[in-house]
Amino acid sequence: MASNSFGTIFRITTWGESHGKAVGVVIDGCPAGLHLNEAEIHEALTLRAPGRSIYTSPRKESDRAEILSGVFEGMTTGAPISILIPNQDVDSSKYEPIKDLLRPGHANFTYLKKFGVFDYRGGGRSSARETVCRVAAGVVAKKLLAQDAIEIAAYLKQVGNVEASIPDHDHDTLRSTVYQSPVYCPDATAASAVMTLLEKALVEGDSLGGVVEFRTTSLPIGLGDPVYEKLEAKLASAMMSLPATKGFEIGSGFSAVEMKGSTHNDQFANKQGKIEITSNYAGGTLGGISTGMPIIGRVAFKPTSSIMLSQKTVNTKGKAFTFQLPPGSRHDPCVAIRAVPIVEAMVALVLADAILLNRCARL
Amino acid sequence: MASNSFGTIFRITTWGESHGKAVGVVIDGCPAGLHLNEAEIHEALTLRAPGRSIYTSPRKESDRAEILSGVFEGMTTGAPISILIPNQDVDSSKYEPIKDLLRPGHANFTYLKKFGVFDYRGGGRSSARETVCRVAAGVVAKKLLAQDAIEIAAYLKQVGNVEASIPDHDHDTLRSTVYQSPVYCPDATAASAVMTLLEKALVEGDSLGGVVEFRTTSLPIGLGDPVYEKLEAKLASAMMSLPATKGFEIGSGFSAVEMKGSTHNDQFANKQGKIEITSNYAGGTLGGISTGMPIIGRVAFKPTSSIMLSQKTVNTKGKAFTFQLPPGSRHDPCVAIRAVPIVEAMVALVLADAILLNRCARL
Amino acid sequence: MASNSFGTIFRITTWGESHGKAVGVVIDGCPAGLHLNEAEIHEALTLRAPGRSIYTSPRKESDRAEILSGVFEGMTTGAPISILIPNQDVDSSKYEPIKDLLRPGHANFTYLKKFGVFDYRGGGRSSARETVCRVAAGVVAKKLLAQDAIEIAAYLKQVGNVEASIPDHDHDTLRSTVYQSPVYCPDATAASAVMTLLEKALVEGDSLGGVVEFRTTSLPIGLGDPVYEKLEAKLASAMMSLPATKGFEIGSGFSAVEMKGSTHNDQFANKQGKIEITSNYAGGTLGGISTGMPIIGRVAFKPTSSIMLSQKTVNTKGKAFTFQLPPGSRHDPCVAIRAVPIVEAMVALVLADAILLNRCARL
Amino acid sequence: MASNSFGTIFRITTWGESHGKAVGVVIDGCPAGLHLNEAEIHEALTLRAPGRSIYTSPRKESDRAEILSGVFEGMTTGAPISILIPNQDVDSSKYEPIKDLLRPGHANFTYLKKFGVFDYRGGGRSSARETVCRVAAGVVAKKLLAQDAIEIAAYLKQVGNVEASIPDHDHDTLRSTVYQSPVYCPDATAASAVMTLLEKALVEGDSLGGVVEFRTTSLPIGLGDPVYEKLEAKLASAMMSLPATKGFEIGSGFSAVEMKGSTHNDQFANKQGKIEITSNYAGGTLGGISTGMPIIGRVAFKPTSSIMLSQKTVNTKGKAFTFQLPPGSRHDPCVAIRAVPIVEAMVALVLADAILLNRCARL
Repeated sequence: MASNSFGTIFRITTWGESHGKAVGVVIDGCPAGLHLNEAEIHEALTLRAPGRSIYTSPRKESDRAEILSGVFEGMTTGAPISILIPNQDVDSSKYEPIKDLLRPGHANFTYLKKFGVFDYRGGGRSSARETVCRVAAGVVAKKLLAQDAIEIAAYLKQVGNVEASIPDHDHDTLRSTVYQSPVYCPDATAASAVMTLLEKALVEGDSLGGVVEFRTTSLPIGLGDPVYEKLEAKLASAMMSLPATKGFEIGSGFSAVEMKGSTHNDQFANKQGKIEITSNYAGGTLGGISTGMPIIGRVAFKPTSSIMLSQKTVNTKGKAFTFQLPPGSRHDPCVAIRAVPIVEAMVALVLADAILLNRCARL
Repeated sequence: MASNSFGTIFRITTWGESHGKAVGVVIDGCPAGLHLNEAEIHEALTLRAPGRSIYTSPRKESDRAEILSGVFEGMTTGAPISILIPNQDVDSSKYEPIKDLLRPGHANFTYLKKFGVFDYRGGGRSSARETVCRVAAGVVAKKLLAQDAIEIAAYLKQVGNVEASIPDHDHDTLRSTVYQSPVYCPDATAASAVMTLLEKALVEGDSLGGVVEFRTTSLPIGLGDPVYEKLEAKLASAMMSLPATKGFEIGSGFSAVEMKGSTHNDQFANKQGKIEITSNYAGGTLGGISTGMPIIGRVAFKPTSSIMLSQKTVNTKGKAFTFQLPPGSRHDPCVAIRAVPIVEAMVALVLADAILLNRCARL
Repeated sequence: MASNSFGTIFRITTWGESHGKAVGVVIDGCPAGLHLNEAEIHEALTLRAPGRSIYTSPRKESDRAEILSGVFEGMTTGAPISILIPNQDVDSSKYEPIKDLLRPGHANFTYLKKFGVFDYRGGGRSSARETVCRVAAGVVAKKLLAQDAIEIAAYLKQVGNVEASIPDHDHDTLRSTVYQSPVYCPDATAASAVMTLLEKALVEGDSLGGVVEFRTTSLPIGLGDPVYEKLEAKLASAMMSLPATKGFEIGSGFSAVEMKGSTHNDQFANKQGKIEITSNYAGGTLGGISTGMPIIGRVAFKPTSSIMLSQKTVNTKGKAFTFQLPPGSRHDPCVAIRAVPIVEAMVALVLADAILLNRCARL
Repeated sequence: MASNSFGTIFRITTWGESHGKAVGVVIDGCPAGLHLNEAEIHEALTLRAPGRSIYTSPRKESDRAEILSGVFEGMTTGAPISILIPNQDVDSSKYEPIKDLLRPGHANFTYLKKFGVFDYRGGGRSSARETVCRVAAGVVAKKLLAQDAIEIAAYLKQVGNVEASIPDHDHDTLRSTVYQSPVYCPDATAASAVMTLLEKALVEGDSLGGVVEFRTTSLPIGLGDPVYEKLEAKLASAMMSLPATKGFEIGSGFSAVEMKGSTHNDQFANKQGKIEITSNYAGGTLGGISTGMPIIGRVAFKPTSSIMLSQKTVNTKGKAFTFQLPPGSRHDPCVAIRAVPIVEAMVALVLADAILLNRCARL
């Protein structure tokens, strides 16, 4: 079924449960010749790690990735790259009392019904813990993108009704601004308002939704494939495979609905001998294929399902219960924040695959 | 690359250009034993056909699908089902004068850059003509869904700033109400306002964006697969593979951003001995797997790129031109309308595949 | 399931039953820029056609392939290439009386048990009629191979106990010698002996097995992929997907069993500054990847299952019957002969795909 | 490219180099509900391990597999099963002096040319070390087969010119007889002759080829899929993906070439109310779909490429050298012996996938 794999040529397969021994990813189809080391992966994992501020889950994971194969003398060999990340700080005992309760907003009900068995400890396979593998694989994908000078930045665009204005920085400045913010938001004013909202949510034991936006630098023209493998279709699939996502849009997105064609149609123009596009409502693709403009998209995240408030539910036998997380449980008041580096990684995975596939378009 | 295929087990491959001899679809992996005839496909194609009212393109296609294989004595055999739909009413001569111009909002620029050659007649492979194949395949998928009593309705939810209220009909009534409306909108008041907007756009030579919403009847629990093949990821990919789409959302979608977890978490309850979910902000899935509730989603369509207004552009060599469609050219003022049966078909294709894959989840 | 598709990037999907309206193939992933016309396909189909001599089935098929998509102004566009070949000379009435009998050596039993329904007319989907689609697709694949100066010849190597000596011709001479022989055998003495065997078999109403051998010109080094996509694994899969095949071998094949490593290990040597391999027991690959030497392989075909002799069998309900083909029924006394151009086509399909995949091995 | 994956639904991905830290396999698509523990895997690995007798390589691997995911409370959960097997007894220093020499019969030349970089230590990814992962995954596949009472036995059929007669044992006795033999050959007389051959080869520093045969118990009817996913095509691909294989045949195999159709056509008969087939030249399939008879096939292995005799070769720059393995190097005089449990595992993987795919054939 390959439901734990993503990509066609540059293809990842992830495995591991939240409270198992480890999680990991196998990257198949990565070209030979990329320099790669564990320190680079560690650095990326740090950005995703919880516990960096009060605004994200206090779980202390100092994730150490181990490269088990596919790299020889510091260089990828074309062989599958196996990366293993041990699980640490795992205490499953607190899940014992609630293991038969259907958790509102969680997947234990659907997993149990589908498979007849569920590794309930920490959410098992349905946990966001799986995304650490995506971030690790994203490091390798970005190395491939760097060959074409493609870079990606993602950031927190909105939480609740607070929307950020994204400064008109060059790419590097934008990205460093993002990761200097405790909430991965490059607009300091909005970031401050978001932190206030999050503090209030923490006090209430409640949670908030958010939007993550991403943008790339100018892409090569021609990435993406016709019809069912349009670049936006792959991005949509990538994003909606992330836990807690409710929506994806590219370019103008849902706001296109209130626009007219005469406005929305980006114009082609000749700028100093080169064909350019003067606006980017399209968000970087036409007919599913990159136009050469930056790709811009947004992902909606629901408010975190894990909240400290008590909730009504039933157990697996239908008996009514009140669900209450034990005091001191870990949770993020807004999953969109830690999703920022994960969204980046998913964009990288989609583009790395698109670059390789595009080598086959012509003679 | 298989970029013209969709699905894993129930898998379609489409082919054909807008102004070629024909378009067609091969359905592989359809189980044996379904009753199928050409009249059923014809009926579905009629709903997609242009020219049903002034609100859609006046191109007169009375599409006749021919089943060339895979059906024996009225029943599917498990062999690939090949369906061919000849192109009619095709006059490519009017594309000749504009063949070197980059059409704003169209894919001729990206196709040409990617492949070095482009069948410009009617948009070739990038044309929405391809979607007739999806609708034909959707008929077969729906036959499979009918075995599990699954039905799907899609409808026009919004055009410009006019948003429809969807009546609380039973499924059959809803669907028939939709297709009785000239704009496939079950809210008569909104439909009327939409028609006014469209008439205005036609006079102006401009176009409008729109939202199509879909909902299914209650699904079996367990459709969809963990991690990268979440049901919403497949739906997102399906929808974003449609021409002119800019966004997809499921359940609460982007509105989840302004909600709190305590509200958004749908509750499990015991209703007369059966576990039920008392709201559906999730939109029918948890962890990517169907909860048993209806699947509800929305797709944003940009305003039609083909407009009658003149637009500035350049030709393939970068020379500035004014782009002007010849008088009497065909176009839809809002592609979202005719997208309604196409969205329905894509939901059906995703669910048919999910039903088959789900047979492999357990011993 | 995609069981009617072959290939990863250069991917074909075939459809159609022996006695249906038509058969056809969709080629997805063919690069843009290849010149292609229907006459070339027609020429290839002629080599596969029955009725060219008394040694093959007298069915008169003057197959005319129609290219329905993917070619614009004589050149491939990167879009799927749909080729349709109408079925002619089809009279299904003679299958009516035997439709409930299990035909020894045929697939009607297994198809019926698997699918619950079987299009028995002419063998339906299990018929060798399907291979016409492979030959048509092979023409396109060979066009791609020609870019790398790769050519393929196949020929009849053995029938019964008559084994041919293959002359040491250059590739073009070899191939033209093959197709001048009524039995596609480039050794005139062996060909003559084979014809005598076939004439005897025809008189007896019986059939014979055969071996088809293929060899390519020198390949680029590097085609094929590690582990599960070894070039020989793909060739094996390609050949064993042909009807009536019982075995595949590459290079030394089964004769390697009686060899020693010191003999079998082909040696590397420096020939005028270039690394060459001085023998080719390997058959052109090491570790599943092409060495630069010609690929050489052989395919075993069982004696044709359709024979004129009466045979004991039962019907679908288990009642004993004598199976007797109606007088004047079509059949090939040895399917290996007509398999020659089909084997060629399958080699071409495997190599075309390998060439494209190999573009992704390095930065 | 997924060249390190095998299977469609029941799908494995392997990783790891011979002298890296570990090798491993991820099994995706295994149904939930199978009992599984590490001891069972360990037992299977023992059968493949070298050093069990003087007839196989003296490398001492007491492989310990660790299940890292996908099993909860002793049962598979439907999540990917990650199995890791650390590499032990690894000393790469002896490869240092020969790292630039092209090894006759080995893949270092083709890997290096393809990828530009090669992990030469112990053959890296091209090493038979990879097959330990197949055996581990095969244990899980066999658990699924056991649900349908399918069992598989493989055994050494031939080495050099010594061919074994396979006793007419019941399946369990056959299999235990095989693994009691130091050369995995159930015919004691042949086994003895083989051992004599092997002892001679060891003294000479040379190696021998061999044939492994496999047979299953009676299969369910209907496994395998039409056209390109015929059961024999998948088995052929599975076997030819093994290192050192030169040929595959099913049922009569290449001997069919000298048979007549009247003999080769297995007959259907009514045996006590059940349709049975009275011979099995077909080897268990018709039209690529299982007939219900045992599957029988054979795999040809070339003589081991690693020999102790000195061989002429060149280095990567084309300079002539004599290649000589260091005294005391590990090698198997005949790889076919240790291939026996690996062939078994590959049959199991093919059948497990076929069983799952077959669930989708009908309504």
